[in-house]
Amino acid sequence: MLRAIVSAPPTAPPLTRRDFVRRAGRYGGGSAFAAMLALGLLAKNGSPVCAKEPAPGSGDGQDDDRRPALRRADGSRPRVLILGAGLCGLAAAYELGKLGCECEIFEARDRAGGRCWTVRGGDTFAEIDGPTQTAHFRPGQYLNAGPARIPGHHASTLNYCKELGVPVEVFNNVNDSAYYHTASLGRVRLREARADLRGYVDELLAKAVNRNALDRPLNRDDKEALLEYLRADGGLDPDLFYRPLSPAASGRAPAPNAVYDARGYLYEDLPAAGAHAGRLSDPLGFEQVLRAGFGRHIFFERQFHQQPTMFQPVGGIDAIARALEKQVAGRIRYRHEARELRRPSPWAGGGACVVVADLTTNGEPATREVTGDFCICTIPLTVLREIQADFSAPVREAVNAVPYMPTGKIGLNFKRRFWEDDDRIFGGISWTDQSIAQLLYPNYDYLGRDGGVVVGYYHFAEDAETVGRLAPAEREALALAQGARLHPQYAAEFENSFSVAWQHVPYSRGGWAVWNEEMRAKYYPVLNRPDGPFYFAGEHLTYLGGWMAGAFESAKAVVSALRERVAAGSQ
Amino acid sequence: MLRAIVSAPPTAPPLTRRDFVRRAGRYGGGSAFAAMLALGLLAKNGSPVCAKEPAPGSGDGQDDDRRPALRRADGSRPRVLILGAGLCGLAAAYELGKLGCECEIFEARDRAGGRCWTVRGGDTFAEIDGPTQTAHFRPGQYLNAGPARIPGHHASTLNYCKELGVPVEVFNNVNDSAYYHTASLGRVRLREARADLRGYVDELLAKAVNRNALDRPLNRDDKEALLEYLRADGGLDPDLFYRPLSPAASGRAPAPNAVYDARGYLYEDLPAAGAHAGRLSDPLGFEQVLRAGFGRHIFFERQFHQQPTMFQPVGGIDAIARALEKQVAGRIRYRHEARELRRPSPWAGGGACVVVADLTTNGEPATREVTGDFCICTIPLTVLREIQADFSAPVREAVNAVPYMPTGKIGLNFKRRFWEDDDRIFGGISWTDQSIAQLLYPNYDYLGRDGGVVVGYYHFAEDAETVGRLAPAEREALALAQGARLHPQYAAEFENSFSVAWQHVPYSRGGWAVWNEEMRAKYYPVLNRPDGPFYFAGEHLTYLGGWMAGAFESAKAVVSALRERVAAGSQ
Repeated sequence: MLRAIVSAPPTAPPLTRRDFVRRAGRYGGGSAFAAMLALGLLAKNGSPVCAKEPAPGSGDGQDDDRRPALRRADGSRPRVLILGAGLCGLAAAYELGKLGCECEIFEARDRAGGRCWTVRGGDTFAEIDGPTQTAHFRPGQYLNAGPARIPGHHASTLNYCKELGVPVEVFNNVNDSAYYHTASLGRVRLREARADLRGYVDELLAKAVNRNALDRPLNRDDKEALLEYLRADGGLDPDLFYRPLSPAASGRAPAPNAVYDARGYLYEDLPAAGAHAGRLSDPLGFEQVLRAGFGRHIFFERQFHQQPTMFQPVGGIDAIARALEKQVAGRIRYRHEARELRRPSPWAGGGACVVVADLTTNGEPATREVTGDFCICTIPLTVLREIQADFSAPVREAVNAVPYMPTGKIGLNFKRRFWEDDDRIFGGISWTDQSIAQLLYPNYDYLGRDGGVVVGYYHFAEDAETVGRLAPAEREALALAQGARLHPQYAAEFENSFSVAWQHVPYSRGGWAVWNEEMRAKYYPVLNRPDGPFYFAGEHLTYLGGWMAGAFESAKAVVSALRERVAAGSQ
Repeated sequence: MLRAIVSAPPTAPPLTRRDFVRRAGRYGGGSAFAAMLALGLLAKNGSPVCAKEPAPGSGDGQDDDRRPALRRADGSRPRVLILGAGLCGLAAAYELGKLGCECEIFEARDRAGGRCWTVRGGDTFAEIDGPTQTAHFRPGQYLNAGPARIPGHHASTLNYCKELGVPVEVFNNVNDSAYYHTASLGRVRLREARADLRGYVDELLAKAVNRNALDRPLNRDDKEALLEYLRADGGLDPDLFYRPLSPAASGRAPAPNAVYDARGYLYEDLPAAGAHAGRLSDPLGFEQVLRAGFGRHIFFERQFHQQPTMFQPVGGIDAIARALEKQVAGRIRYRHEARELRRPSPWAGGGACVVVADLTTNGEPATREVTGDFCICTIPLTVLREIQADFSAPVREAVNAVPYMPTGKIGLNFKRRFWEDDDRIFGGISWTDQSIAQLLYPNYDYLGRDGGVVVGYYHFAEDAETVGRLAPAEREALALAQGARLHPQYAAEFENSFSVAWQHVPYSRGGWAVWNEEMRAKYYPVLNRPDGPFYFAGEHLTYLGGWMAGAFESAKAVVSALRERVAAGSQ
């Protein structure tokens, strides 16, 4: 059985944490998959490690309508502390509530949602040791600073949207009209680069098929079917050439190019009425597209978690957090920071004891001890590392070991939607080989007359570290200078910006956990087991790293495990 | 210069109109492109026919802010009659209004919009010689019976939306979670078929590259770049194989398959929390995917006019027609059918004379003559053929010659959104080799609790003719029986249906004009010139056949031509 966990082969060079994160960052996107990739492409072999076929009724994190209330054999209910009111903490409290189990959530921030965070005009924020930024976006415009999209197959996220009445709209992950930009080629529409790559590649293969130069025998029918596919896929002419530039250049008669318009028309000469047949754009050269490295970005959208249809909540990603927050209203203590996680000895009561600092008071925060039978700790490992805790040695080692992805976004507020008006780009992503990496166009307020917020960079690993070290004004200058190479309109239309470097965000300190195979094998199982009264939960303890669905699946899994333990009577 | 008009080569077999339309229908989608394709793939050679580089200030159908009012040298304004209040007639009247020119529109139906038509609960309709159908869709649900989508580069359509305040939302044309279905293979998710096709094809080529078996020399760097692209595109393992089924089966060590999840996971075992790494689905065999003909559908979304981002107006496509209708309110005579188009001799006043029948009265409709200096005729050629008209012989021949695409849609109202709840399909298209051809899932009311309308078939040519001959109840039975092979939930969830066979729709009599190269060369220029006082306009006189943008571009072009003629003083 094939498994997502494969161990690094003995011959693979040892990777430092830094190397690994940097490689993972190359592949973009907020997914553990990107991270797996970085290592996977290096691995020559791998062997399946874990296998599971959950027994019926096992705590498998799936919904179970027959589940009993969460209580002990004597009918009493345990007291549960939850650390963190991010999506995982909120969902755990919500699910515990469904089981009749009260809990108390301690949240260091003055808001719920954690990384599920939407920035709007008037919002203020400071990174660790950074200046306070105030967002000046126009009314109705926003930046989803953390997660922003929901694949259609993330049922846990979409089911919460349905259950809690959060309306969703399409998030365009793929837009053929957006740009690829490289220093050498300038900007090219996605459709152009893709058609050229496909065209040349299909041409090469079609000719090899035609010459029977494959190492695989094909019968006559299969050969013809393959050629038909390649002709259609690549837009090849009857002689199996990818669209010649001109009859003169190729010495051949022109192909019926009119039938293959995947590469698109020149925007200044589109098909229209009367004699306006439109003018097809000319392909780049084979070597040009090959060397440009566009394939890397095409790969991005191929990922299972990046394929359409994808969604976003209407009005901002935090609609999900707010809807859950409403369900557990009154159970959240905001601005209460966990300082110590203790395990009192059995003769001192056992269970979990958390020292929390109340940041709502002026001056030195008052601390107090809160106790529970169990504690669900959703604090990111990067933050948990700095907290004193009575963890077992293996847990402590695991908490300290797992790296997090540095990542940053900047919202650029423009007074006109020039990307729509001028470039005919509606949503989606442009890619560049500069350190801004991606531009994400807003997937809302299409055709609007009051400007909009473009995500002026979204990057990872080294790019994010380098840019994250800059002050907000310097980040803005960098985003504007690099972005103007894709959109010269930047200078005339820019109004203001707001940027976030997640590795410097208090109580987050990173984008998401990055697992490599070795760590997944060594530390992941350790953290997925309770350490006495402490349960760990969050996107970092799933195969949906960086996704909101990870937080939700983890919440359900931990509540399920807790229910079973309590039912079994074990402390 | 490459042109979309290419003449058929002398060696091409002669195509009957029927053959041609049938072939065009194979490629799906409401575009002249699909039609061009049918012939284009047959053509071995072609030669550019028309070239244009519009002179500055020429009537090129583009917006021109400097355009003067439409009036004669003496300051008087011509009287213009418009036949048809479809999108082209409406837009022509609207644009004439901007030029200070009054007009009168005669519309045979009791509504504006023509083929731009949304059917909602309570609407009634009868095809020619057909029974009256009443739609029983739930409130808020609808069927866009004609056009349904707007590519982002159709600026004329989207600019009207912006100008007239019509909000738009994303139309999902591509959804990797939707199905391909064939009799032999059953149903397969789009992502699976695509990943398999790419994987095997890339494997073949990668191995050929590796063996230096190409007919094109590649230097070492380019070879490595190509292999890197193929590995990523196809998800190849380090040995350049597309994902082996198992180590045992292939005799090779397992590839690091975890890094390539484009083909997706089993929906019953998706990546989740804890040990739930998810289980990747197994590929089909190479010959299976090759013979299944999936490539044909992949090709569909590659077309320039079918690429994302695409839009639809919120609440139904007719929002566009209604917004334009509002602009020309009072100038439309509904239920006034053009019966004769006459050219009075100069000594009888000249200009255009149209005999219209007033269908609003009871009994035999009263007819009357209306006259104008010019007449813009947007009536589809299939309908115009049946109207007595003083056309020149070449125009008459052209009007009679051009075929229209038979096409049909059925809206199936279901009481539960099982395609979302159970199949995780949100919008997009499933394809089948049955005569229903396509299922289109609604791109609105996602996660809704009040069911929804699925387009249960959308087909062309022979499929549309065959099914269009059936009575509505028989069409419904066919759609349900075939559709249940993709969605067994049909039987339990179906409520009611409403179907349209466009070749039988009064005043439309077909989907859109289908041009082949020969007709484009012979008849298209004839109809793009005025015949005395008569101007012809509509999607059929553009290179945007079947698209709303065609109607708009044609309207602008005809108004532009009229303005020039009047300014030049010629009658």
